[in-house]
Amino acid sequence: MDVARGWNVTSSPQSLRTINPIQQITSKLDMKNVNKDKVMIPLSLGDPTVFGNMDTDDFLVESITKHAKTKRRNGYTTSPGFPDVRAKIAEKYKLPNHQQLTQEDVMLANGASGALDIVIAAIAGEGDNILLPIPSFPLYETLCCHRGIEPRFYQQVAEQDWQVDLQQLESQMDNRTKAILVNNPSNPCGSVWSQEHMKQIISIARNHCVPIIADEIYANMVFGGAKFTYFAEISDDVPIISINGIAKQYVVPGWRTGWLILYDKLNYLKELRDGLFRMTTLLLGPNTLSQAVIPDILDHDMSGFCNDLNKALESNAKFTCEKIKKIEGLTIFEPKGAFYTMVGIDVDRFSKSTQNVIFDDVSFSQELLKEESVFVLPGQCFKMKNYFRIVFCAPVDKLKEAYDRIESFCNKKLKLN
Amino acid sequence: MDVARGWNVTSSPQSLRTINPIQQITSKLDMKNVNKDKVMIPLSLGDPTVFGNMDTDDFLVESITKHAKTKRRNGYTTSPGFPDVRAKIAEKYKLPNHQQLTQEDVMLANGASGALDIVIAAIAGEGDNILLPIPSFPLYETLCCHRGIEPRFYQQVAEQDWQVDLQQLESQMDNRTKAILVNNPSNPCGSVWSQEHMKQIISIARNHCVPIIADEIYANMVFGGAKFTYFAEISDDVPIISINGIAKQYVVPGWRTGWLILYDKLNYLKELRDGLFRMTTLLLGPNTLSQAVIPDILDHDMSGFCNDLNKALESNAKFTCEKIKKIEGLTIFEPKGAFYTMVGIDVDRFSKSTQNVIFDDVSFSQELLKEESVFVLPGQCFKMKNYFRIVFCAPVDKLKEAYDRIESFCNKKLKLN
Ligand SMILES: Cc1ncc(COP(=O)(O)O)c(C=O)c1O
Ligand SMILES: Cc1ncc(COP(=O)(O)O)c(C=O)c1O
Repeated sequence: MDVARGWNVTSSPQSLRTINPIQQITSKLDMKNVNKDKVMIPLSLGDPTVFGNMDTDDFLVESITKHAKTKRRNGYTTSPGFPDVRAKIAEKYKLPNHQQLTQEDVMLANGASGALDIVIAAIAGEGDNILLPIPSFPLYETLCCHRGIEPRFYQQVAEQDWQVDLQQLESQMDNRTKAILVNNPSNPCGSVWSQEHMKQIISIARNHCVPIIADEIYANMVFGGAKFTYFAEISDDVPIISINGIAKQYVVPGWRTGWLILYDKLNYLKELRDGLFRMTTLLLGPNTLSQAVIPDILDHDMSGFCNDLNKALESNAKFTCEKIKKIEGLTIFEPKGAFYTMVGIDVDRFSKSTQNVIFDDVSFSQELLKEESVFVLPGQCFKMKNYFRIVFCAPVDKLKEAYDRIESFCNKKLKLN
Repeated sequence: MDVARGWNVTSSPQSLRTINPIQQITSKLDMKNVNKDKVMIPLSLGDPTVFGNMDTDDFLVESITKHAKTKRRNGYTTSPGFPDVRAKIAEKYKLPNHQQLTQEDVMLANGASGALDIVIAAIAGEGDNILLPIPSFPLYETLCCHRGIEPRFYQQVAEQDWQVDLQQLESQMDNRTKAILVNNPSNPCGSVWSQEHMKQIISIARNHCVPIIADEIYANMVFGGAKFTYFAEISDDVPIISINGIAKQYVVPGWRTGWLILYDKLNYLKELRDGLFRMTTLLLGPNTLSQAVIPDILDHDMSGFCNDLNKALESNAKFTCEKIKKIEGLTIFEPKGAFYTMVGIDVDRFSKSTQNVIFDDVSFSQELLKEESVFVLPGQCFKMKNYFRIVFCAPVDKLKEAYDRIESFCNKKLKLN
């Protein structure tokens, strides 16, 4: 017996490979190095509640209050969630071509993140790979790496409305590819794909017999004439695992309640269901009060609230485009959904005119923070160098102030005035 | 490129090794084979809310309602939880010998289960082992196996107030042992250890330089003169990772909010903190409304509610002991905390008198279910053959009815009348 090893409590390999790309990149920024004369404006957080201008509907507050008062939703649920909640989701998310949906096809989780964790952990093991978009929500990579799954990346092309480079996508696939993960509408692009493009992706999945994990947490949050389509609407055979939840559409990300739905008419996921179910047993489902709210929301007419939210997002998106378009050295790719947009930085120009002080997206963000106290996430957080991401949820006066500062910053750096 | 593999979507090895012992054992029971003439009485679920006689305090309902109404606790928190909540927990769980505690020592999680997942995943990797009690809460083993960590078991001895067989415990340790996990008060034993016994365990941990994970979710839920002590109270050097939460003490298991506290004055866990933090980033913390309730609870005088709950548990425990003690063929080990007790089955007697129909705990539970519609979990769910577990939260009239049925069942099977 070894009694002389001394205190040497280390972190396990699986925890150490749990890397958060946003933290990794932003840790390079000196967050204290801000212009103290200007009030900080963070356009960085994918959380619409930050400024108080986009709050949830009173209906959700009333519903959760009602359930809290009964004290009858305080106990444990079965691990994939309350049966009545799963049944209601199945009923409401049935699609014309997927009338077979039942509560067995629905599992609740701690937010869309929790649902992603369940799917990724159940579908792939060490040595397998999952295809992830670039640019993308960084948690996908975190979840894969944590599990020892190889993340492989496919490119979305800014100049083509962030459509996928299909050939490059297909070139990444091999017989250890367990899924193609797509995110539409997209964080961080704000893009919304056409049905035609989605069919092309489904077709590749079909040819390789690989299911699609569709992160549709921004479902229906579209504007400017864009039309949202669920992947399952246009796939009868390729299994679609749709990730959704209440975080974004109803502006309650802190409630940590999301779900996954298996659209799998041909029962190709039969064996996978066991793994998915086992994964839910680890944590006993999401909190019961916010689970209980879901049937209330789904049975209520929330269209007024949702339309108003979309209108507010549309107006902010439009304002953002108009302002950023006019700024020298930046290129904006017009968002059509969610509340994000990517902005390209002409680093060659900035680099020349600043003697290489600004030479990429990280240095751009750092200097902007330092001089103007505006915080935007560098594109490298999303594996997209020389871009930055704007979250346009802030009130218009804040957005205006932020964009004015970005404009004068760019002009100064490019020595335009 | 392999385009001809066909649809073969399987579950990953890590999901398939996620085994729930309760499900494994109870799946052997024919749950439909019950006596339809008698109303089913489940004494199986570790959920005090099941019968409606042990509900949470109005104060929690008012608190969560208040926070919901402000709409200011709907956003994302940092991944280990709201700083103010962590700080309040640190303040209130400071101990005389651990005045150093700060919010950095506290991480919130999706229930005590979530906190256990974080600790277990961060402290050990594949090939390492963690020592777990027998009998014990089955999730410990589930979490270890899921992560490829070897669960090793140490025995708690019924006849010695469920104290640990220290020699056997020590014999299980080697240089891949990453932690000793203890659970006091215990599920399923209802035992509460003396300080003296706890010191013996700490001493073994010290000799081997192995930290203690103390699942103290039933902290202070003791009665009958028993005194509860936190492990950290009597350890200045051996690091204690204490698991706690609001699920049991405040009767809101469905709210899924718990935490871990690092009592580590000598900073032996310095390296581990990184792994723990990384683990929290996977799921973005527990839901914000129930997080927000915690400071309210901790600042409020909840002693009235807690005392009443303990009194109710004490009275149910006493009633359970009195009734079960009188039943031939069963042995009860008096509970002193939580809301569980283990009952020994004299299988030799039952086996003889039933011509081997009842020959272990599983067959006992099955026959009891079939003839009396009373459901108790077989000891094998907790790795303790020839025992069964009673959850004594039900109202006394239900308990009485259940114990009367168990008595006549045993008498019949032992052919006593
Ligand atoms: C694309 C995408 N998926 C999932 C999530 C996580 O959602 P939840 O808060 O429900 O875990 C986010 C949050 O920003 C997101 O942008
Ligand atoms: C010993 C023990 N630890 C942890 C838990 C889980 O607690 P939570 O509901 O907070 O995840 C339980 C639940 O029964 C338990 O008995």
